[in-house]
Amino acid sequence: MSKLTHLDSQGHAHMVDVGTKDDTQRQATAEAYISMTPETLELITSGGHKKGDVFAVARIAGIQAAKQCSNLIPLCHPLMLTSVKVELTAEPENNRVRIESTCKLRGQTGVEMEALTAASVAALTIYDMCKAVDKGMVIEQTRLLEKQGGKSGHWTAES
Amino acid sequence: MSKLTHLDSQGHAHMVDVGTKDDTQRQATAEAYISMTPETLELITSGGHKKGDVFAVARIAGIQAAKQCSNLIPLCHPLMLTSVKVELTAEPENNRVRIESTCKLRGQTGVEMEALTAASVAALTIYDMCKAVDKGMVIEQTRLLEKQGGKSGHWTAES
Amino acid sequence: MSKLTHLDSQGHAHMVDVGTKDDTQRQATAEAYISMTPETLELITSGGHKKGDVFAVARIAGIQAAKQCSNLIPLCHPLMLTSVKVELTAEPENNRVRIESTCKLRGQTGVEMEALTAASVAALTIYDMCKAVDKGMVIEQTRLLEKQGGKSGHWTAES
Amino acid sequence: MSKLTHLDSQGHAHMVDVGTKDDTQRQATAEAYISMTPETLELITSGGHKKGDVFAVARIAGIQAAKQCSNLIPLCHPLMLTSVKVELTAEPENNRVRIESTCKLRGQTGVEMEALTAASVAALTIYDMCKAVDKGMVIEQTRLLEKQGGKSGHWTAES
Amino acid sequence: MSKLTHLDSQGHAHMVDVGTKDDTQRQATAEAYISMTPETLELITSGGHKKGDVFAVARIAGIQAAKQCSNLIPLCHPLMLTSVKVELTAEPENNRVRIESTCKLRGQTGVEMEALTAASVAALTIYDMCKAVDKGMVIEQTRLLEKQGGKSGHWTAES
Amino acid sequence: MSKLTHLDSQGHAHMVDVGTKDDTQRQATAEAYISMTPETLELITSGGHKKGDVFAVARIAGIQAAKQCSNLIPLCHPLMLTSVKVELTAEPENNRVRIESTCKLRGQTGVEMEALTAASVAALTIYDMCKAVDKGMVIEQTRLLEKQGGKSGHWTAES
Repeated sequence: MSKLTHLDSQGHAHMVDVGTKDDTQRQATAEAYISMTPETLELITSGGHKKGDVFAVARIAGIQAAKQCSNLIPLCHPLMLTSVKVELTAEPENNRVRIESTCKLRGQTGVEMEALTAASVAALTIYDMCKAVDKGMVIEQTRLLEKQGGKSGHWTAES
Repeated sequence: MSKLTHLDSQGHAHMVDVGTKDDTQRQATAEAYISMTPETLELITSGGHKKGDVFAVARIAGIQAAKQCSNLIPLCHPLMLTSVKVELTAEPENNRVRIESTCKLRGQTGVEMEALTAASVAALTIYDMCKAVDKGMVIEQTRLLEKQGGKSGHWTAES
Repeated sequence: MSKLTHLDSQGHAHMVDVGTKDDTQRQATAEAYISMTPETLELITSGGHKKGDVFAVARIAGIQAAKQCSNLIPLCHPLMLTSVKVELTAEPENNRVRIESTCKLRGQTGVEMEALTAASVAALTIYDMCKAVDKGMVIEQTRLLEKQGGKSGHWTAES
Repeated sequence: MSKLTHLDSQGHAHMVDVGTKDDTQRQATAEAYISMTPETLELITSGGHKKGDVFAVARIAGIQAAKQCSNLIPLCHPLMLTSVKVELTAEPENNRVRIESTCKLRGQTGVEMEALTAASVAALTIYDMCKAVDKGMVIEQTRLLEKQGGKSGHWTAES
Repeated sequence: MSKLTHLDSQGHAHMVDVGTKDDTQRQATAEAYISMTPETLELITSGGHKKGDVFAVARIAGIQAAKQCSNLIPLCHPLMLTSVKVELTAEPENNRVRIESTCKLRGQTGVEMEALTAASVAALTIYDMCKAVDKGMVIEQTRLLEKQGGKSGHWTAES
Repeated sequence: MSKLTHLDSQGHAHMVDVGTKDDTQRQATAEAYISMTPETLELITSGGHKKGDVFAVARIAGIQAAKQCSNLIPLCHPLMLTSVKVELTAEPENNRVRIESTCKLRGQTGVEMEALTAASVAALTIYDMCKAVDKGMVIEQTRLLEKQGGKSGHWTAES
């Protein structure tokens, strides 16, 4: 059998059967960074209302994307998220914005992909809103930070 | 007026009016990388059919995501892509997979976001299919490589 | 803390965590009205099959929209409706159509938004089908009539 | 033939053939109101960042909904909006929020439904974000204010 | 090069580049049949309003599905249908319902898939509405009847 | 009362109330066939990687469609599939491809429509990928093979 659970013994993709897994409380946190010129970051953060709006749009895009995850990622299970949170922080010292997203669920399958998708789409949304002034922005280090619940238990990324 | 074109003079988000822009041939290429352990990469690449399927699933996910871009990125315009291509390459020397996506359109607005979204979602799909064996995978350096067409003309990333 | 539960202490939007709420039987009923000229209403109601079709299309649109609610309303939770009903009634004495929708669910969060969305989209669909003859139609008084279940219990609108 | 263009001679629904219509510049503006208690309106408007976020979320929801219009309204044509704008204004003297949305397109079919859908969904989003404190809010008077372009030309609502 | 245009020289799937194709008027007609017991067909057709509703729901489902085609069929191009028509006819002599769908577009790519998808989903919808009384229904002979426009010109199925 | 459960006593469509049904383990298997010329089938099956890709794309399309079922079929309930499997087999002796799909769920409503939708969309995807060389392909005999779970218990198609 393949160790890649989404492939059957012939290497064909399928949606893993989670029907016999326990319903447990599950949670996952992911992060992503988007780096930019100091001028671009300044445009985002200058003026309270403007910062509010760029970050507000990215936050909503991330939350909406978490809910769309099973439509985007072919072998993800549809699931009913009980909580999605997306936080954006300007890091002027590093010329970047940090995005952290946390998803929760009580169910039979984990929410890692939902958290990663939320962080990725929030980053893409910042790119979209700033690309007129800075096409060179780079989305860096999208990764899972922590997951809880399910058979594999608690996992945290090496820092 | 804000230099961020998606914000009006009060800092409120809106979908930029492209109605007066010319219809031109537009094209954009983006890339992303996903790094993993050598063992994970080996699982993906060992056996022709398996590689075929993991990469085939990620390729399709990227293509589908490009078409969903305006639903994911709040201020993107709906548009009719004439071409989407997603290529995946194993780079065993760097323990990673490289993803390159190219989108084309004849229209009033660029396809940078479509190309970036395709690359991001293809990378997320690889994460999904391999996460059972390697939760520490990292998606790195999602960025625009090149764009053509439109008023801002030809742009290429600094290498 | 903000009294608006969708905003955190900093005023940032998030999807409220319902993970600790009880699964209870929940139900909500909403209504909307669309007013029009007597001639337009007559066109809708004259002839059995025609009435059938305009109302049938609006009914289906309302039901479909209830299922799309969490994609439309950014901070709504995805949920699994167990029942959706949309009823349309011509009120010739008031030159309008009344729409009433009821949604049900056993779950951790209420279905008020699903019922309101169903009524709104059914009304918009009537507008769409009749706009060639009557652009002045007005959708009036979309509101929640009643909800049951959940911590806040039974609520009915003042008449 | 039926005067309701979405019904054929037998009263069956279909998507009207617009293939022979001219490509013209089209524009439509719609409005909606949501009335609430003075306390609810105060919660929305007190504190700059909070106002920003409630209105920012509703604005994004309205813009996204305009793009989803042809999926929500069964007989609407898919189209490529070139501009969507959603403006929200608190009207404390009337205990309500006013929503105005404008959509633009160069194409063969009008954008009235897109503008109306944007206004409706923005109003529903405000309901969602405030329903914990005020279930009695009412969405009033969703209607088309003005349309331009196409064979039927310029139309404005009676005030 | 592969003769299958959706596969590149390495057999990898991609969305065919139609950017250099001419904009022409395109049209496609498809059909499908769903066979059932005489009793089931009688239930559908007995009583004017009932027939109206089952067929009305299937008709709407088919029209909506045509618009969703590029989201369902991975390598289909997004496009802006100018017309969709779905007709359902009871054929009591053959214990079946016939579905015929026609889609139109002025564009760079054909609408065969849209017509086939409309017919398929209309048939599935009839199955859904009647499955409580007849699980043995069979959808038969979903096929393209005719296409016009584009480089390959006029094509008709052998009868 | 109508025997067609999706119609109320007046023949109006609604989403059947499943709120009082038991949560049981449910499973359904459907099949579809797509017939083609021997040359087309040969193109699909010749060369390991090519076969892999055509079938891989159709498989993914089927899986994705099963998850979209409640958006496509108007009166289907949203549900959380725990497993989707789509298998494709070339049958050179009959000049066709056989598709078999199985869906599973623990819930209050069956998954027949999800299985049928997966098989239909997988077949449509094969049509799409091969239509450049063979427009005369026919999708034949899409039907339910077996269902388990729920009040109506075990059902198998007559062979």
